[in-house]
Amino acid sequence: MAFGWIEEQARVRRDAGLVRRLRPRPAESPLLDLASNDYLGLARHPEVTEGAARAARTWGGGATGSRLVTGTTALHAELERELAAFCGFEAALVFSSGYAANLAAVTALGPHGSLVVSDAGNHASLIDGCRLARGEVQVVGHADPRAVRKALATHGGAAIVVSDTVFSVDGDRAPLAELAEVCRERGAGLVVDDAHGLGVLGEGGRGSAHAAALAGAPDVVVTATLSKSLGSQGGVVLGPARVIDHLVNAARTFIFDTGLAPAAAGAALAALRLLAREPERAARARAVAAELYTRLTTAGLEAVRPDAAVVSVRAPSPERAVRWAADCRAAGLAVGCFRPPSVPDGISRLRLTARADLSGAEIAHAARVIGETRP
Amino acid sequence: MAFGWIEEQARVRRDAGLVRRLRPRPAESPLLDLASNDYLGLARHPEVTEGAARAARTWGGGATGSRLVTGTTALHAELERELAAFCGFEAALVFSSGYAANLAAVTALGPHGSLVVSDAGNHASLIDGCRLARGEVQVVGHADPRAVRKALATHGGAAIVVSDTVFSVDGDRAPLAELAEVCRERGAGLVVDDAHGLGVLGEGGRGSAHAAALAGAPDVVVTATLSKSLGSQGGVVLGPARVIDHLVNAARTFIFDTGLAPAAAGAALAALRLLAREPERAARARAVAAELYTRLTTAGLEAVRPDAAVVSVRAPSPERAVRWAADCRAAGLAVGCFRPPSVPDGISRLRLTARADLSGAEIAHAARVIGETRP
Repeated sequence: MAFGWIEEQARVRRDAGLVRRLRPRPAESPLLDLASNDYLGLARHPEVTEGAARAARTWGGGATGSRLVTGTTALHAELERELAAFCGFEAALVFSSGYAANLAAVTALGPHGSLVVSDAGNHASLIDGCRLARGEVQVVGHADPRAVRKALATHGGAAIVVSDTVFSVDGDRAPLAELAEVCRERGAGLVVDDAHGLGVLGEGGRGSAHAAALAGAPDVVVTATLSKSLGSQGGVVLGPARVIDHLVNAARTFIFDTGLAPAAAGAALAALRLLAREPERAARARAVAAELYTRLTTAGLEAVRPDAAVVSVRAPSPERAVRWAADCRAAGLAVGCFRPPSVPDGISRLRLTARADLSGAEIAHAARVIGETRP
Repeated sequence: MAFGWIEEQARVRRDAGLVRRLRPRPAESPLLDLASNDYLGLARHPEVTEGAARAARTWGGGATGSRLVTGTTALHAELERELAAFCGFEAALVFSSGYAANLAAVTALGPHGSLVVSDAGNHASLIDGCRLARGEVQVVGHADPRAVRKALATHGGAAIVVSDTVFSVDGDRAPLAELAEVCRERGAGLVVDDAHGLGVLGEGGRGSAHAAALAGAPDVVVTATLSKSLGSQGGVVLGPARVIDHLVNAARTFIFDTGLAPAAAGAALAALRLLAREPERAARARAVAAELYTRLTTAGLEAVRPDAAVVSVRAPSPERAVRWAADCRAAGLAVGCFRPPSVPDGISRLRLTARADLSGAEIAHAARVIGETRP
């Protein structure tokens, strides 16, 4: 029977306690949110939701076609100009998702005959980009510039090094300056995904590359999402204009995808302007993460010191991680629960996001609930 | 120098007349639109744009996380229920794009050890899905059930057959009934992309599978976009509940992507309800395509008889196709221009979309302009 093998896989998942279910949330959740990626608390900000509403009314419910046919509006161009200027890059290109932006950057910049060096802890979208790229892929140890140097030395032609800037599971940072140095020794390009850095790291949230004085460099390309700090949907690639032109001409997830919906572009643009006007939001997200980390470790929990706004807390097993998250939820707290196969090292954890708009009392309450419900 | 090889590729593209540029359009275009995929003319419909605006205000600018963490709202669940009911399937799962939906369906249903049989004319997103799938891929001739049967006979284990229902370049239809028959002979699953069929084909626009009496079958999975007939952004996979559950647990572009923005879900839901209330829009799109085809061929142009709402007109070369489209534009008509590498057979063409809301006078005018500007 067609799809008959699915039952066996479902049984294995059930036996391993790894079944995932969708749990629709209401518009006004009674839970304190430490699970979303809404780092700056902008997704529900009236300026952002009005930005979405206005764009839909002015431009329509969808972009109506590929960006190369009818799908590019003056709104997309405006968003791209402001994103590039804010982050310090020559040009920007917006996609329907961060996943699509990563597939585009890695495949278009890792052509046949090139080498693609990829961090073992990279996000699924970068991994899929590597698998789709026509170049040779070498996976190297996590956050290890020496391993990157060694990999680059094996190859004579064009090369790129691909890494998250802030790794989504543990919230740790890549050694960007060292990676850039290693790349420059070999004339390689550096392609980094700043999904969890934009809006949180760098001056006023200008991102990881800006913080590392790499923004606008001719050999650096940054991807990011519009769906985390900017409270919307979509992805972006930032880089030299000639690299962006190349993506317009060569990236399949750009050419063969409908353009980002006007409402998403409008929401992201409103959030970006808000962040430019209120740069303290970025520092506040980092401070919330640091305070949460201190409270959790003081209570004896095993957490990873946060480099950005993600705080990762170890759990003893997938089943107990699920139970822990459920107990938090029962106590009014929404936390992320990362389990295999979503974790590269097989270790389950609670994943907390430190939203800039959490109050001191909320942080203290959250840490108390997590401590009291520990397995 | 990093990315130095880009210059050479750019030069080759320039020499071949294949450079692509973004041309931002204004909110109120003076052009008559025969280029978008807004088949039912719903992207600017006030109910659709209000659906987007209301959803953004109620739910926020973005979904704030993966559908498995905080990214599933009651609005997503409502859209999925209504899409499944409208198209005649047990369950539906919504993605941030049609591209992501296709990657999800093909990779999750084409695992290691399985066979994936793919039509040579398939869309880029299905091709990328095949490349990412762990199963063995066999590409077969375009719209050729006998070749599919032969490919399936080479493999003993699980198998799927992957095809567009309406091919985006020429607008021709896949032989769905024959493909389903061949699949059933071998216990294979049929996975079809109805991006250009939903809203246009089948009773009231219920899509190609519904038209072929395959909707709801246990061995049929349909993908579609929310960005064409439904005037929004996003993608959907429709199928048996157990297949949808499997995608929730196994599809990387579902698990590792931010959920579809509420505004896009709201716009698509409003468009779907509008279509359910005004089913004649689907037939009208087909009638517009037929009339356009008749007028163009009567004028001596070489066009493909439309099976849905896409009318493809052959051009002698990429350069002359570009010139032809530019001349149409100068005369007030927006038409699509498909050139290598976006065409599987290397033949350049104008691609016209027959929107349901075009008047008879507009169709006649469009055909006249295209005829008068022919190379």
